[in-house]
Amino acid sequence: MNYPNGHKRTPPPTGGKKNKKPDYSNRGMTLEEDINQTNQAYLRSGKAVIHKKPTPVQIVNVDFPKRSAAVIKEAYFKQPSTTDYNGVYNGRYIDFEAKETKNKTSFPLSNVHEHQIQHMKQVIEHGGICFIILRFSQQEETYLFPAEKLFSYWERQNSGGRKSIPYKDIQQGGHFIPLKFHIRVDYLSVLDEVYL
Amino acid sequence: MNYPNGHKRTPPPTGGKKNKKPDYSNRGMTLEEDINQTNQAYLRSGKAVIHKKPTPVQIVNVDFPKRSAAVIKEAYFKQPSTTDYNGVYNGRYIDFEAKETKNKTSFPLSNVHEHQIQHMKQVIEHGGICFIILRFSQQEETYLFPAEKLFSYWERQNSGGRKSIPYKDIQQGGHFIPLKFHIRVDYLSVLDEVYL
Repeated sequence: MNYPNGHKRTPPPTGGKKNKKPDYSNRGMTLEEDINQTNQAYLRSGKAVIHKKPTPVQIVNVDFPKRSAAVIKEAYFKQPSTTDYNGVYNGRYIDFEAKETKNKTSFPLSNVHEHQIQHMKQVIEHGGICFIILRFSQQEETYLFPAEKLFSYWERQNSGGRKSIPYKDIQQGGHFIPLKFHIRVDYLSVLDEVYL
Repeated sequence: MNYPNGHKRTPPPTGGKKNKKPDYSNRGMTLEEDINQTNQAYLRSGKAVIHKKPTPVQIVNVDFPKRSAAVIKEAYFKQPSTTDYNGVYNGRYIDFEAKETKNKTSFPLSNVHEHQIQHMKQVIEHGGICFIILRFSQQEETYLFPAEKLFSYWERQNSGGRKSIPYKDIQQGGHFIPLKFHIRVDYLSVLDEVYL
């Protein structure tokens, strides 16, 4: 799901094996790439200041060669304690996580961690706007799903219930984000309708 | 200044060589450690949700041993394109950078980068609250300095002027943050007076 820096999935060439139908709306860009492109477009046009946080890494060993840059020789990926994206839009604090699933019928809750849920609750308590952007990569559909709705599925799971959110619940309770050309995942337009 | 993860300056033992006078207000904690402790206190008490972003790292080579966690074998520190800290307080977007200097008479502007200044300007344009927290470690004094005031010094430097902010300008134009025991650098209390 979260591809760390330098380890991004490279997009398959157009018309490659993975693209069975000639679909020009999604040429194998990952959700992360789409959102980064979107955030850059927002920044350039002065719409919002939203960035992806760096991948959290636990650095264990660093080499400092003379006359050249420090080289990290041993480090490990850490589980993020917050969400991946945050920033400011129209004076409001925006905070979200982005997740992609190949699952056709539901979004597995194993994609989210307990402390991310706690973080989302804290953000909402303090007046921030919090949500997840979900992509069903098989259907090529992307949804904005409010964190408030995610919580009830999370609690149901914690009390022994199902470990995923059904696709149809996301269709109904979430908000479809159409894929566009210039601003690929224009989630702020959807946000305008839902929250502002 | 910015110590990357895993490379933090360890605090000297109390009464060690570096503490000539018995000063219990600052036992060699770095500004970063003080702010992290402060942010944790804010989070626990429900005052605000403000986190330090992970250190940005360019990952070049990752080893995936069987049955154990991925090991990053080669990576480099990247220059941050935004500030180190952001979050939400009373519904407002908060964004700041923290810098410590051993210089007694001025704060060298070389501690800040051009794209950080650009980021700060964008934050303010979008209704966020932006500032730097400066510590003069020799004087053991910490100040909140609004980003708006930093810009004029930055522009003066860019047009050939001095490359630092005089200590007395920070005393006058900034806001002293007293060092406390439970919430070590209580910058939000200062913010309440200045902005809210």
